[in-house]
Parts: sequence; C-alpha cells; structure tokens
Amino acid sequence: MQPLLLKDASHMVDSALAHGRALGCHPLTVAVLDAGGHLLALKREDDSGILRPRIAQAKAWGALGMGAGSRGLAARAADAPAFFQSLTTISDGRIAPVPGGVLIRDSEGHVIGAVGISGDHPDRDEACAVHAIESAGHVADAG
Amino acid sequence: MQPLLLKDASHMVDSALAHGRALGCHPLTVAVLDAGGHLLALKREDDSGILRPRIAQAKAWGALGMGAGSRGLAARAADAPAFFQSLTTISDGRIAPVPGGVLIRDSEGHVIGAVGISGDHPDRDEACAVHAIESAGHVADAG
Amino acid sequence: MQPLLLKDASHMVDSALAHGRALGCHPLTVAVLDAGGHLLALKREDDSGILRPRIAQAKAWGALGMGAGSRGLAARAADAPAFFQSLTTISDGRIAPVPGGVLIRDSEGHVIGAVGISGDHPDRDEACAVHAIESAGHVADAG
Amino acid sequence: MQPLLLKDASHMVDSALAHGRALGCHPLTVAVLDAGGHLLALKREDDSGILRPRIAQAKAWGALGMGAGSRGLAARAADAPAFFQSLTTISDGRIAPVPGGVLIRDSEGHVIGAVGISGDHPDRDEACAVHAIESAGHVADAG
Repeated sequence: MQPLLLKDASHMVDSALAHGRALGCHPLTVAVLDAGGHLLALKREDDSGILRPRIAQAKAWGALGMGAGSRGLAARAADAPAFFQSLTTISDGRIAPVPGGVLIRDSEGHVIGAVGISGDHPDRDEACAVHAIESAGHVADAG
Repeated sequence: MQPLLLKDASHMVDSALAHGRALGCHPLTVAVLDAGGHLLALKREDDSGILRPRIAQAKAWGALGMGAGSRGLAARAADAPAFFQSLTTISDGRIAPVPGGVLIRDSEGHVIGAVGISGDHPDRDEACAVHAIESAGHVADAG
Repeated sequence: MQPLLLKDASHMVDSALAHGRALGCHPLTVAVLDAGGHLLALKREDDSGILRPRIAQAKAWGALGMGAGSRGLAARAADAPAFFQSLTTISDGRIAPVPGGVLIRDSEGHVIGAVGISGDHPDRDEACAVHAIESAGHVADAG
Repeated sequence: MQPLLLKDASHMVDSALAHGRALGCHPLTVAVLDAGGHLLALKREDDSGILRPRIAQAKAWGALGMGAGSRGLAARAADAPAFFQSLTTISDGRIAPVPGGVLIRDSEGHVIGAVGISGDHPDRDEACAVHAIESAGHVADAG
C-alpha cells in the first residue's frame, strides 16, 4: 500500500475546486486527509464561511473513522440517531453525517485517505469530491 | 471592503437595545462580531440570563460560520437534524440554529460581521438586530 | 448589596477606553463581569488582537474566581507554579495570572463584579481598570 | 483594506515550500490563515509529522491573537511563563510561542492574515514564512 502523497492530495484539491467552478457551486472548502485522518492539503475559496474548514475535515475524518463514506453515515444516522449523537462527542466533533466525505481507495481497495468538501448542497459537494479522486486515478467510495 | 469598526459596532448594540425597549422586549443581550467571528461589542441588560451572552454570540457566530443568517440555519436544521447536531460539536457550541443571528453586509454585499441577540422571542430578537444593522447604514441578511 | 447594573458597567468600559486613549495605550479590549463571572459589557478597539476578548475576560474571571485581583494572582503563581498551571485547566482557561483584572467592590467591601483589560503592558491595562472603577464611584481592588 | 484571497494564500504556501526545498529543510507543513484566524490554505509535505498541521496553525493563530509575530511571543513567554501557560488554555491550544508564525501586513500596515510553518528549526521555519509573504508582495512581521 502506497501512502497518499502531497502531490496527489494537491492535485485533488485543485481538481475539486475546478469542478466546483464548472458546476457553478457556491464557494467551497476542500480538505484531503491521509489514512490516519491528518490534514495533507486544504483550500478555502473566497467567501466560503469560517466554519467550512472544520466541516470539510469532519466529513472526511468521519468517513475514515467509520470506514464508510459520509453518505452512508447519513443513512445510518437516520436509523440510529442517539448513537450518532454520541459519536459527535466520542470523536470530539470530527464526524459529520452528511454527503461530501468520500474515501480514497487504491487499486487494491485499501483506504489511503479521504476528501471532504463543504459549501454547496451536500450532493454537489460529494460530486466534486468523487470527481477529484477519480481524476487522480484512485477509486472514490462515497458510502 | 472596510472592516467593521468599534464605533459602528457600539452604535449597533445601543440601537438594538433602544429598539428592544421601544418594543417592550424582555431584557436582551446583544453581541456584535467581526467577519472572523470575534467579539467587538456586547451589552447584557439587567436581569438578562447568564447564558444569554453565549447564545447571542452563537447566533452571530453560526451565521458567519455557515454564511447565512440563523433563520436560514433553523430551516436547514429542520431538514437535516443529525447534521446540525454534529455542527454543535464541530463548532464547539458556537452555532445556534434559531432566528436572531443576522449577517451585516456592506453596500457591495460582502459580509463584514454579524449581530446576535438573545432574550425575547426569536422573531423579536431578530427584529432588533435588523433594526440595528440598518440604522448603521448596512444591509441586514437574516437568512 | 446592589448588583452591578449595565448602566455602570457601560460607563466603566467607556471610561477605561478614554483613559487608555489619554495614556496613549495600544488598542485595548475591556470586559466587565458581574459577581457571578458573567459578561455585562465588552468593547474591543480597532486592531486589538482576536484573543484579547478571552484574555480580558480571563483576567476578570480569575479575579472573581479566587477573590483577589489578578496582580495578586500573578504573585501567587510565581510561588506556586504547578498549582496555577492546574488552575488554568480547572477553570477551563478562565484565569490569567497577570495584572489587569481588578475586583469591583461596593462601599461596604462586597465584590459586585470585575474589570479585565488586555492590550498594553499589564501595568497600564490595570491602571485603566482602576481608573474606570473609581470613576464609577466604586472601590478598585487590584490584588 | 483588501481581505487576503485564496489566490495569494495558495501562492504563499507553494512559495514557502519551494524555499524550504531550496534550503534543504526537513519536511514542512505550511498554513495560511486570514485575519480572523481561519484557515485559507495548508499543505503538509510527505513525512511531515501528524501534529505539524496543528503546530503550524497555532504559530499563525497565536500571532493573530496577540497582534505580534510568534518570535515576539517567544520572548514575552520567557519573561512571563505563568501567563503564557495560561494563554495555552485560554486560546484552546491555538498559540505556540516559538518562531515560525509571521503576520502578513498590507502596504498600509494592516494585518490581513498570518503564515505558520512547522517542521524544521524555528529560525528556518520563519525564514520560509518571511520569504513567502514577501514573494506575494506583502510585508512580513515576524515579531
């Protein structure tokens, strides 16, 4: 398993932002975390709200934390609200059960990191994350 | 874009409190934050509860954090309760999805701060915030 | 014992800032807390750092917390560094052992609140706080 | 006063990393914050430690919080250790009194953000931050 490199993480951030501009998204914040949940690269567009860096990271971190994209976590949260409420505290606020946090898998299926995006509708945030991961030659797992 | 000055923030606090007195509101707490979410001016009226300073700041901070007045956040929270619950922790308790947190926009539409008010019914809290922002010559965005 | 009123707290904030301007101080942040340690009034001057509201409140809160002005706490911290280190956590970061947090006593000696100021040298911060309290007809206890 | 744009923040991150490579630095993490202390852009080089993103941000945030570059904070911390210990908690761990956090000033002297770098010797971290700010046409204030 090859760890995610800054070169690839930077490419994903820029690719996600370019896709957001092409789709006419609201100002986005894009975070790429490594497999350990630690920030590799982040960019916040002009006029993207001041909480967006934390939300973007929480979408990605929560995906890594539970081993499933944040769309899947949103579905589980609807079924088990009390458990997901406890998870927000268990994780110190590093989980966000809403689409836009997508696992990065290598060609063998290993999780090597995650992309989290916040700023537009969750479905569009997620579309930008998937686009970025695939443009870097990896497999996107949105949950 | 001109940063919000203490002179204007102080004017907004006093204007909001005067409006609250004219409307016969319960004792209010009024907070004005700059664009980065940092307190510029705050006043808590006699007999306004001891949690009010935090609530007023959370209404304003949450609006800045998400780039939308807290009335809009309240509407979104009704649609995505699990996500907004997670936002409480992601933001370290600095978001309050209820009316009364209003963005201050300059004449070009840039967000230069926010007013948060707590103490009476949320609709009346918000009315005082809007009054204060407009009396200072800025544009109020309640969400 | 008469509780501290917003009218008096506002007067103290403005009086402290006027004194700071007369002394040529760096931009100041002034906080006035009631006897329960809860914010009554605060103003942050233009270009006063974004951590100043928390520091000003911690100077005042710590004074109330220990029943002694923050100059006295600074002296005790020099004698008992490990204990004061634990106090920063015990108080959730609401204590600052450095001059500039001054108790407000009424004519009978009862503590009715505290003023905390941050932005210039601690001795000058404290001088502004003492001036403000005395200008409101109360007794300043700097510790 | 023009707010710091992502375009400039991204340029500073890349410029700092290029300077670090030219100097033969250990793997670096570079963070650029806006005037309110919120992340605009960050990159962590391959093999840069997992705590580096927080340290880099704390160097920059602490500089903004106190209105002085982190070299100046390091000097003050040597004079007032108990107070700086309390600042660690007052700021929720967002201050690091060691060189490498440099204020970004515009041509009129206004603080528009800060660069924080961690990974090599603090003097070299700081040199990369100063280089990045100056290469973007702004004024570096290392404290």
